[in-house]
Amino acid sequence: MTRIAIPEDSLFGLANLPYGVFSTPGTAPRVGVRAGDSVVDLAAALGDDVFSASSLNPFMAQGHARWVEVREQLLDLVAGDVPSAAVHPVDAVTMHMPFEVADYVDFYASEHHASNLGRLFRPDSEPLMPNWKHLPVGYHGRAGTVVPSGTDIVRPSGQRKGETAPTFGESRRLDIEAEVGFVVGADSPLGGPVSVDDFSERVFGVVMVNDWSARDIQAWEYVPLGPFLGKSFATSISHWVVPLLALEAARVATPMQDPEPLPYLQEKNPWGLDLSLAVSWNGQVVSRPPYREMYWSPAQMLAHMTVNGASSRTGDLFASGTVSGPAKDQRGAFIELTWGGKEPVTVNGEPRTFLADGDEVSITATAPGPAGARIGFGEVTGRILPAR
Amino acid sequence: MTRIAIPEDSLFGLANLPYGVFSTPGTAPRVGVRAGDSVVDLAAALGDDVFSASSLNPFMAQGHARWVEVREQLLDLVAGDVPSAAVHPVDAVTMHMPFEVADYVDFYASEHHASNLGRLFRPDSEPLMPNWKHLPVGYHGRAGTVVPSGTDIVRPSGQRKGETAPTFGESRRLDIEAEVGFVVGADSPLGGPVSVDDFSERVFGVVMVNDWSARDIQAWEYVPLGPFLGKSFATSISHWVVPLLALEAARVATPMQDPEPLPYLQEKNPWGLDLSLAVSWNGQVVSRPPYREMYWSPAQMLAHMTVNGASSRTGDLFASGTVSGPAKDQRGAFIELTWGGKEPVTVNGEPRTFLADGDEVSITATAPGPAGARIGFGEVTGRILPAR
Repeated sequence: MTRIAIPEDSLFGLANLPYGVFSTPGTAPRVGVRAGDSVVDLAAALGDDVFSASSLNPFMAQGHARWVEVREQLLDLVAGDVPSAAVHPVDAVTMHMPFEVADYVDFYASEHHASNLGRLFRPDSEPLMPNWKHLPVGYHGRAGTVVPSGTDIVRPSGQRKGETAPTFGESRRLDIEAEVGFVVGADSPLGGPVSVDDFSERVFGVVMVNDWSARDIQAWEYVPLGPFLGKSFATSISHWVVPLLALEAARVATPMQDPEPLPYLQEKNPWGLDLSLAVSWNGQVVSRPPYREMYWSPAQMLAHMTVNGASSRTGDLFASGTVSGPAKDQRGAFIELTWGGKEPVTVNGEPRTFLADGDEVSITATAPGPAGARIGFGEVTGRILPAR
Repeated sequence: MTRIAIPEDSLFGLANLPYGVFSTPGTAPRVGVRAGDSVVDLAAALGDDVFSASSLNPFMAQGHARWVEVREQLLDLVAGDVPSAAVHPVDAVTMHMPFEVADYVDFYASEHHASNLGRLFRPDSEPLMPNWKHLPVGYHGRAGTVVPSGTDIVRPSGQRKGETAPTFGESRRLDIEAEVGFVVGADSPLGGPVSVDDFSERVFGVVMVNDWSARDIQAWEYVPLGPFLGKSFATSISHWVVPLLALEAARVATPMQDPEPLPYLQEKNPWGLDLSLAVSWNGQVVSRPPYREMYWSPAQMLAHMTVNGASSRTGDLFASGTVSGPAKDQRGAFIELTWGGKEPVTVNGEPRTFLADGDEVSITATAPGPAGARIGFGEVTGRILPAR
């Protein structure tokens, strides 16, 4: 048996216990939980085959009561003696996609981001559309190109606006979007909206998201049906899924919503979240977006997404949209941070606007846990490879 | 053994042989092929377990060479004696979803439809956006709410524009979109675009699609990120997947494309298709949209969808967008057919605009087969239930 040593200041202590899918050399991917700098093999430690799966989906599908039960088991397990064969150093494992993505939806829930993008994409109009403060604007993205942290990102090619006719070539305005993603665990049926108060019954956990964006492709294609190829080449997520159950201490009120939202969007106990993001560009932190500034809460997003009767499924991923705060160094996309490329930021001594080949971007976050603890989200990282 | 009698004028003769997933009382869903008014149980007839699956996905994933091989086997099988236990009357089976939908993309490839919708949604602007003739405009839809023909459609509720503020309620402008859907059989990798000439290597077959649309919800929500809840409550597809291999005789040139598309969209041998659709409203045919009028071919759609390096997967469904021809009685959506509700059509003696509770819509199509044969697509049908 082994007693797992968790450093006092670990972001992966008992307050967190995020889930992921890992393998060791010569073994199949399976579910693990992170404790300090260790990964606990849950099938080996708990003897439950649902954790032998190569994704979290079967466990998530068991529903909220089961998530609570297993979390209690894990708190006991990790605080005591764990079978040695079930414990691996985090540096010795390979991490994989934590879950199979069913549908992927991307929202647009930061007023600062939506206003900035409105000014940049439509300089002659009001930055916010008339609907923006009445509903969480969102759209479907490509589930099949959601990839785990560490996957290289090939620079996309596509059409962009030209002088007289569009031209084809590699994207020259490759960007990031620092977002927070919510993973649906338990199905809701067709025809049955999810109440804004049932968010925690349905959503299993939270990941970091980098919604890579080719701004030149996007700007040309996006009218009237929305972003498509400017986004669909890749969306990266973190390896670790932080249980929603670990985020009670991080709950805060959303910013004042004025006008008052329609009744189906009114929360009794708001699901604003005090997550502090950090965006690193080639190792240098260039932005610290505050999630607590987001106008719409994730519970409002899920209620809106299903209010028309749409079902949701185990593995659905919905992301917040770019997290941007009011200050310039709180902006979660480079197009905002550099104001469309006109105001370069200095990265390791060089003026930079959009992504160059070889650049690496890493996004992470921390949140308050109970009793002064801090919990971490791991990171979502990706490096740009040249266009093919 | 049984000899299957196929009526001379059957739309499901040897020229067609569409695939579906069926069950008989007390048995599990499995793959069948339709021949005349019979369904042949392929696992029973061919002794191959890939057809015991409850979806076409495992068979489709085997790739193009295998699709050709099985089609040849089926032509021999159906023309000769079939084990009696493998043959079921089509009226005695229950049909299911034919495949698991991976990602769902909806295009907007009819110039007539895009122009009509532009006039109706943006009366003060040019009907076609500047990008429309340069690329097949499309967006991602909700894969989890694609349902098989015969599924009842619950009228969706949602926000719509009001006098001073939006109001919430059931959709008052519930509509259809008559479309043709293409089912990806064989994966293409991340970073590897599918050439416009490799369409038939990747796409397994074709279905009828009804992309139900709540126009009041859509009109309020769709700026700037595209349609979302106005579409995501349900998309219906036909039970039968017509193999692309059956459609060689239906191939035609697309309409003249001017300006000339960029090289990645130029087809050597065009994949325009001479499909004749028919839309029935409570049993009365109200429109006959001609697919041969579509500006962009499905091969161009697939090449565009992957030109940024996006992968495609077994089970991806991409639909054409509403099929509308130049004549009024060739329009594939009721918003066009009734010009925004201002010009009712007469259905069974009554003036009608949008869908009422209890209405049933059925869409079908035929196409030329070899040697003067005609082939059919079955139908996609749905009935509107009152809002919950």
